[in-house]
Amino acid sequence: MEKFEAIAKKYFGTEVSDRDRAIFEGAITLGAIFHQFTGIPITKELVPLIKETIEKTMGIQPFIKNINVNISEDTLRSYDHTYDYSVLTGDKLELEIISQYGDTQVHLGMKHVKELDFPLMFIKKIEES
Amino acid sequence: MEKFEAIAKKYFGTEVSDRDRAIFEGAITLGAIFHQFTGIPITKELVPLIKETIEKTMGIQPFIKNINVNISEDTLRSYDHTYDYSVLTGDKLELEIISQYGDTQVHLGMKHVKELDFPLMFIKKIEES
Amino acid sequence: MEKFEAIAKKYFGTEVSDRDRAIFEGAITLGAIFHQFTGIPITKELVPLIKETIEKTMGIQPFIKNINVNISEDTLRSYDHTYDYSVLTGDKLELEIISQYGDTQVHLGMKHVKELDFPLMFIKKIEES
Amino acid sequence: MEKFEAIAKKYFGTEVSDRDRAIFEGAITLGAIFHQFTGIPITKELVPLIKETIEKTMGIQPFIKNINVNISEDTLRSYDHTYDYSVLTGDKLELEIISQYGDTQVHLGMKHVKELDFPLMFIKKIEES
Repeated sequence: MEKFEAIAKKYFGTEVSDRDRAIFEGAITLGAIFHQFTGIPITKELVPLIKETIEKTMGIQPFIKNINVNISEDTLRSYDHTYDYSVLTGDKLELEIISQYGDTQVHLGMKHVKELDFPLMFIKKIEES
Repeated sequence: MEKFEAIAKKYFGTEVSDRDRAIFEGAITLGAIFHQFTGIPITKELVPLIKETIEKTMGIQPFIKNINVNISEDTLRSYDHTYDYSVLTGDKLELEIISQYGDTQVHLGMKHVKELDFPLMFIKKIEES
Repeated sequence: MEKFEAIAKKYFGTEVSDRDRAIFEGAITLGAIFHQFTGIPITKELVPLIKETIEKTMGIQPFIKNINVNISEDTLRSYDHTYDYSVLTGDKLELEIISQYGDTQVHLGMKHVKELDFPLMFIKKIEES
Repeated sequence: MEKFEAIAKKYFGTEVSDRDRAIFEGAITLGAIFHQFTGIPITKELVPLIKETIEKTMGIQPFIKNINVNISEDTLRSYDHTYDYSVLTGDKLELEIISQYGDTQVHLGMKHVKELDFPLMFIKKIEES
């Protein structure tokens, strides 16, 4: 275990397993992305740049292995005049995150669920090997 | 199980336990608080109001039982002139969160760890009954 | 002029008038409120607390004399189940700000304009005396 | 005047000049950038991407002609281990913005002023032609 993780570990309960930890780290990043990036001005043309920025900046959070951001372009405007843009909101945003701690990989996601009218965050799959 | 939770459950893998879920929900809120509230203008006088606002607004996130926010006042200014205030940053902020799903309660926290120079988020305790 | 404002003044062009400055300071706060507070979880019950928090925290920004926040409650949910809340977005938010520098008072506002489908920020009135 | 600007104009007082308006629009963007982007995880390697994202997303705000973002790299970490990154804060960020309305161009800026220990926003120059 690397030196800095050994320092961090002292703050965690001894009952915390690799599985617990992998879930924990992935979930933090879900919450973080939503609350950091909603509000950003966005047009269709800016989608690739915003996608890359979310994936790369939030991908340095601890134990995040992969982030895939999807922004639903059909709700976005194609900049035609001064006021013709949107801001990023939860209903436009889909997230897939893979976190890993030790040998456990967790696949997490977020998508807007119409029946709940809510940007639901969820754990899709837990892989312990 | 309430109707809306049944809808949400369909997005979660069947292997996801109550323990997994309680950790997941608490961790989302840790990430969310950090990225929503850092940046707010703050003085010593405003600490009680900001504390209450974080606790109550983020306390409505799913399966959050309790939030306790601590803002270290010794790093804050006491508004004396026009430019005499700070903005809330991670090193000024300590969080304690209790999340609960089914019978599992998880105690989570955040505090600035000097040795890491990092606002560390952690799982203090998992109580399954 | 207070000591700290004298330091700040050195960064401003000499052609900047009190009127220019009052507009400048009020507009900063409009932009700041939108991008700091959108994303906060909100229900009808939480409106008074969130209103107070925005008004008081952003009211310490330089040369802001008054802020009045209006959150349109008809678009908000009244918390009935786990997923039954919204997050604050620009279309739910109306702002009135008065900034003052020297003897000039500026009345600024923000409201969602349907014809533009845009949270328009504007200068309502400039009072020089 | 374009159709949508004519709609927007109705919300502005008739005494609002091009100069007033250009200052107003630039200042909104200063406040917006600070409160939208502080909190983003950052390392030296990510500076060009974050710079581009701020410049391009905030550059679509009304009447913004140019944005130049400078992030002071000497305070940033070069990612070496799990916890070895910073988040973007006001003291790491320098902004230059040019706004234009009609024939008036306004040069605005933000930088951390040590004597105030404050991320000061200012109007550098107003050019009416």
